[in-house]
Amino acid sequence: MTKIVIVGGVAGGASAAARARRLSENAEIIMFERGPFVSFANCGLPYHIGGEITDRSKLLLQTPASFRARFNVDVRVMSEVISIDRTNKSVTVTNLKDGSDYTEHYDYLLLSPGAAPFVPSIPGINNPLTHSLRNIPDMDKILQTLQVNNVEHATVVGGGFIGLEMMEAFTHLGIKTTLLELADQVMSPVDREMAGFVHSEIQAKGVDLRLGTALTAVEYVTDNYIATEEAGETIAHQHINGHLQLLLSNNQTLNTDMLIMAIGVRPETSLAEQAGLKLGTRGGIFTTPTMQTSDPFIYAVGDAVEQSDFVTGKASLVPLAGPANRQGRMAADNMLGGSASYQGTQGTAICKVFDLAVASTGKNERQLQQEAMQYEKVYVHSASHASYYPGAEIVSLKLLFSLTDGSILGAQAVGKDGVDKRIDVIAVAQRAGMTIEQLQHLELTYAPPYGSAKDVVNQAAFVANNILSGLTQPIHFHQLDELNNDQLLLDVRSPGELERVGFIDGSINIPVDQLRQRMAELPKDKEIIVICQVGLRGHVAQRQLVNRGYRARNLIGGYKTYAAATQ
Amino acid sequence: MTKIVIVGGVAGGASAAARARRLSENAEIIMFERGPFVSFANCGLPYHIGGEITDRSKLLLQTPASFRARFNVDVRVMSEVISIDRTNKSVTVTNLKDGSDYTEHYDYLLLSPGAAPFVPSIPGINNPLTHSLRNIPDMDKILQTLQVNNVEHATVVGGGFIGLEMMEAFTHLGIKTTLLELADQVMSPVDREMAGFVHSEIQAKGVDLRLGTALTAVEYVTDNYIATEEAGETIAHQHINGHLQLLLSNNQTLNTDMLIMAIGVRPETSLAEQAGLKLGTRGGIFTTPTMQTSDPFIYAVGDAVEQSDFVTGKASLVPLAGPANRQGRMAADNMLGGSASYQGTQGTAICKVFDLAVASTGKNERQLQQEAMQYEKVYVHSASHASYYPGAEIVSLKLLFSLTDGSILGAQAVGKDGVDKRIDVIAVAQRAGMTIEQLQHLELTYAPPYGSAKDVVNQAAFVANNILSGLTQPIHFHQLDELNNDQLLLDVRSPGELERVGFIDGSINIPVDQLRQRMAELPKDKEIIVICQVGLRGHVAQRQLVNRGYRARNLIGGYKTYAAATQ
Ligand SMILES: Cc1cc2nc3c(=O)[nH]c(=O)nc-3n(C[C@H](O)[C@H](O)[C@H](O)COP(=O)(O)OP(=O)(O)OC[C@H]3O[C@@H](n4cnc5c(N)ncnc54)[C@H](O)[C@@H]3O)c2cc1C
Ligand SMILES: Cc1cc2nc3c(=O)[nH]c(=O)nc-3n(C[C@H](O)[C@H](O)[C@H](O)COP(=O)(O)OP(=O)(O)OC[C@H]3O[C@@H](n4cnc5c(N)ncnc54)[C@H](O)[C@@H]3O)c2cc1C
Ligand SMILES: CC(C)(COP(=O)(O)OP(=O)(O)OC[C@H]1O[C@@H](n2cnc3c(N)ncnc32)[C@H](O)[C@@H]1OP(=O)(O)O)[C@@H](O)C(=O)NCCC(=O)NCCS
Ligand SMILES: CC(C)(COP(=O)(O)OP(=O)(O)OC[C@H]1O[C@@H](n2cnc3c(N)ncnc32)[C@H](O)[C@@H]1OP(=O)(O)O)[C@@H](O)C(=O)NCCC(=O)NCCS
Repeated sequence: MTKIVIVGGVAGGASAAARARRLSENAEIIMFERGPFVSFANCGLPYHIGGEITDRSKLLLQTPASFRARFNVDVRVMSEVISIDRTNKSVTVTNLKDGSDYTEHYDYLLLSPGAAPFVPSIPGINNPLTHSLRNIPDMDKILQTLQVNNVEHATVVGGGFIGLEMMEAFTHLGIKTTLLELADQVMSPVDREMAGFVHSEIQAKGVDLRLGTALTAVEYVTDNYIATEEAGETIAHQHINGHLQLLLSNNQTLNTDMLIMAIGVRPETSLAEQAGLKLGTRGGIFTTPTMQTSDPFIYAVGDAVEQSDFVTGKASLVPLAGPANRQGRMAADNMLGGSASYQGTQGTAICKVFDLAVASTGKNERQLQQEAMQYEKVYVHSASHASYYPGAEIVSLKLLFSLTDGSILGAQAVGKDGVDKRIDVIAVAQRAGMTIEQLQHLELTYAPPYGSAKDVVNQAAFVANNILSGLTQPIHFHQLDELNNDQLLLDVRSPGELERVGFIDGSINIPVDQLRQRMAELPKDKEIIVICQVGLRGHVAQRQLVNRGYRARNLIGGYKTYAAATQ
Repeated sequence: MTKIVIVGGVAGGASAAARARRLSENAEIIMFERGPFVSFANCGLPYHIGGEITDRSKLLLQTPASFRARFNVDVRVMSEVISIDRTNKSVTVTNLKDGSDYTEHYDYLLLSPGAAPFVPSIPGINNPLTHSLRNIPDMDKILQTLQVNNVEHATVVGGGFIGLEMMEAFTHLGIKTTLLELADQVMSPVDREMAGFVHSEIQAKGVDLRLGTALTAVEYVTDNYIATEEAGETIAHQHINGHLQLLLSNNQTLNTDMLIMAIGVRPETSLAEQAGLKLGTRGGIFTTPTMQTSDPFIYAVGDAVEQSDFVTGKASLVPLAGPANRQGRMAADNMLGGSASYQGTQGTAICKVFDLAVASTGKNERQLQQEAMQYEKVYVHSASHASYYPGAEIVSLKLLFSLTDGSILGAQAVGKDGVDKRIDVIAVAQRAGMTIEQLQHLELTYAPPYGSAKDVVNQAAFVANNILSGLTQPIHFHQLDELNNDQLLLDVRSPGELERVGFIDGSINIPVDQLRQRMAELPKDKEIIVICQVGLRGHVAQRQLVNRGYRARNLIGGYKTYAAATQ
């Protein structure tokens, strides 16, 4: 009889426990969780705070009792594993209810302790109005502060997905919100110009977005207010009643009623470290592809471990639920004699930001540059479904690929509809090792309510292949700053569009449909940079020019990409 | 200077013309279209009739004038190509406006004549109240009949996607509708049990659905009504004023005010045939993967040609816009010296049926049986996104795969949300040659509004791999009819569910969470057929039973699949 001990009872741990039981009735399975809850929906927490998920109990997918009934798993909540004795194959557990310690033997140990919100030691940061969000108790504390402190203004530090979700939650609640982000963009998995669409959306929804701004100090100011028992208030109220004075890196100050720290998470490695398990280069627990740590009797999964990046093969930290769930399942297989092997993480991710979705898979441009990897990129802005059918929305898609072998390096998309689908499609293609040549041939579902005869992804592939085949000479928005006297900007949109949408100073305007007639107006000795709204008419014009003996390049992604980059 | 002549000015033809011009300014391009319009959105026609697309002009993506301005293509509408002289490389064209004929030389000829609605020669079928729908004039005629004949009841013959879309359009207009379908199911790309979900939806929306019913005769009854000029009516009214008496294969009669024939389309091959071009085994124009016909100077694309089936490699007729568009683009490349090669058709398709989407890719079970191909199948019914986040809907997914090599043979899905995405994901995986083992590892976008940490597709892959690895012994709904005395039905749902949803007579009920305690109630000498709602709890129970030494099989897809099969 195999005895499996699991540390951590949520995504990775609970998935492993359930799978282990399905594999074996005989195994003894104990799952330790230091918090009061297991199997909760971490990802749903911001939405309960914001009020979209009204029923709190929906966040609790399993309880210790239901786990026992269905899976015969011995779930011990409020039980913190504080050390591992690898020689004797046992763990020491603190019962947090009474403070007592005991040891528990294991045949196999699975670590799925997750990652903890990183809160830097900013002066004054420890105060009753500052929270981070990882679990149900955190959520409850935030809800309590909202209730008791009469929050009119909230500040979120960090523009990652949890920060963005909290920003949206506060806004839904009618709370004026400031979002502070040290970088010059939110949502670091996508590149700056794609984040530009998100910035517009955030600002349009009335959020005070401050990029390039860090929090440097916090002062907790208790309000001059005495709780009264007649008003149904307890002494506890007094403690959290007040506001915060934030000092920012630009020396500005900001008064706020509540502060959320969401600048990122750090793998929980102290237990592993203390037990002498190997850590990786990025500070997570090292595992082999079978999820085995450096100790063959100890497995580790989820946010705490380093995952192999699908594109580069290098170690990476990807704190996402999909990998954690699937790794937990694999670890269970392997602890019970199987040989499941994790096949690398693309980092496929998505976040809802008000009406927008922003998603990505694979590497972004910044990362490719850091890795000194060669790449080319295209942008398309195509309708999520047939544009003549109601409800179509633009999907802005960026595709990164290799000019050498046509491999897909990464993709990013932003839009109000169909963003998840396009990134999923490309994630599958990337994982399967498809080239951008093959992407052209994808045969996707098409009827007017769902897609287009040439889907967004097909279009992106067409544009990419036109570059690959030399049909298109591309120019990118950031290269427009470096134009020389030998180059000339030609905007082929209609004059009305230029006026309405904006244009780049110094460009000549000849609408694409007049170009054939008016081509003589253009000098043959200059390279013509063709600009349109998204790149499609620019492509038509650029091909015309080249076929008539001009030198011409097409602004990939058009003015829309250019404008987003400055947003 | 290459002279390209194109027959047909819509999906394949217009795409080819546009691409050809982008490739070459010098080519002379003439596009003949016998109808009055080019580049129209065939797929949008039913939605304009139904009123969702209010603006008729939105259906006209390009006009002859816009084609000339943007692409310098000589578009000749109302011009029917009536013969091809391959020796002299010329076509004869009838100008339908004046009836005159002329010839036009070509260097390359592209045939994209499409497919025509097949209307069988049923007695009385030629009458002013019977229509089929292929193009704008057809749509206008239908709209006119609706206006003039005061249609209170409409009948649609054929449950393919055009028939279903017309049924929905009529229902939207408040017209009571009967749908006649000869087969025992609508939407033939999916299997009978998956169509069951669609049948429920159709009936729930008040349509009179008659499966297994053919139309055998039609009688046009003119109403006793005289048009009056005072009422603003013209003589034309008189002609189409009336109703139809339909005779059905079951000898019933049906009175209806309008009849739509939508039982399928046939490739338009007369021109090709007359010119001696090779036809394929399925009656479409034969082409090589470069879209070349048996004459190297004649290319053909779209609904008129036979496409190579992606799974079987055999010839197939797949009248869908995606392939037509992409083939048109490729033919243009190849006529201008390129070497683009079409890579087979999966038949990926989707149809909106009221609130449902029904979609498929690859082969269905019927086709696999016809091909005598070995296969296994799984069903899952999983939430389109995290079930705790508002708006989640069940996606019912069927996955067909090979037990020998794990290859993906086909997939079908039905549901109110996220159906297109799942079929797209599997279509990409199938095209890339991924196995069901690899499907488990797909890393798809996950945040509560968009998906689940284990996506529907992952779950289907898990179930499939459990069968492949021998962990699950499956039983399928149609095998429940053949149970013997050695087998016992065990329903592991809760008693309340059984009562609410229904159950299979003779099954024992032990809820999954009580199974461990009550297992002794079950006989060890019988094979236990475990039933739950979708198969998930059945899986948990079946594994428990097997691990405790019972013989047990899990009803794949659960009671939900079983019930859909009888719908
Ligand atoms: C607010 C929020 C929103 C999120 N949204 C998304 C999303 O939309 N999409 C997405 O993919 N991911 C999302 N995530 C991330 C996702 O939840 C994690 O990637 C996933 O839960 C990681 O699983 P895990 O098992 O590694 O860790 P966790 O799920 O964090 O579980 C680890 C558990 O281990 C316990 N533990 C740690 N140490 C010990 C110990 N020594 N003894 C006992 N117990 C211990 C902890 O208390 C914790 O409960 C979100 C996370 C949060 C917090
Ligand atoms: C109502 C309807 C809804 C549809 N919905 C969808 C959908 O949702 N999804 C999907 O994928 N597909 C759908 N389709 C199918 C899709 O429209 C076709 O697959 C596609 O248009 C085929 O392109 P094609 O170029 O081969 O033929 P067509 O687009 O039909 O174009 C052929 C043209 O050639 C002309 N022509 C034929 N012979 C001659 C001649 N001798 N001389 C001159 N002109 C000639 C015809 O008049 C016709 O206009 C739908 C079709 C219809 C009718
Ligand atoms: C309207 C019609 C003529 C358009 O043909 P088209 O110009 O080839 O198609 P699109 O407008 O989608 O443009 C695609 C081209 O733009 C390019 N493109 C798309 N987005 C781009 C972008 N953002 N930047 C640069 N190029 C872009 C593509 O690469 C492609 O060019 P290529 O073929 O040279 O590679 C043709 O599709 C048609 O007649 N459709 C109506 C009929 C029909 O399809 N019916 C069935 C469906 S309802
Ligand atoms: C709740 C929890 C314990 C469930 O674990 P689980 O039972 O492994 O997961 P699921 O309920 O999705 O079921 C998956 C199993 O059912 C099977 N299954 C799914 N649908 C099925 C169907 N229709 N028929 C048969 N089997 C099916 C799968 O094959 C899989 O079994 P396997 O692993 O033996 O192959 C775990 O996911 C959890 O704790 N989640 C909450 C925490 C979390 O994930 N947070 C991050 C996201 S918010």
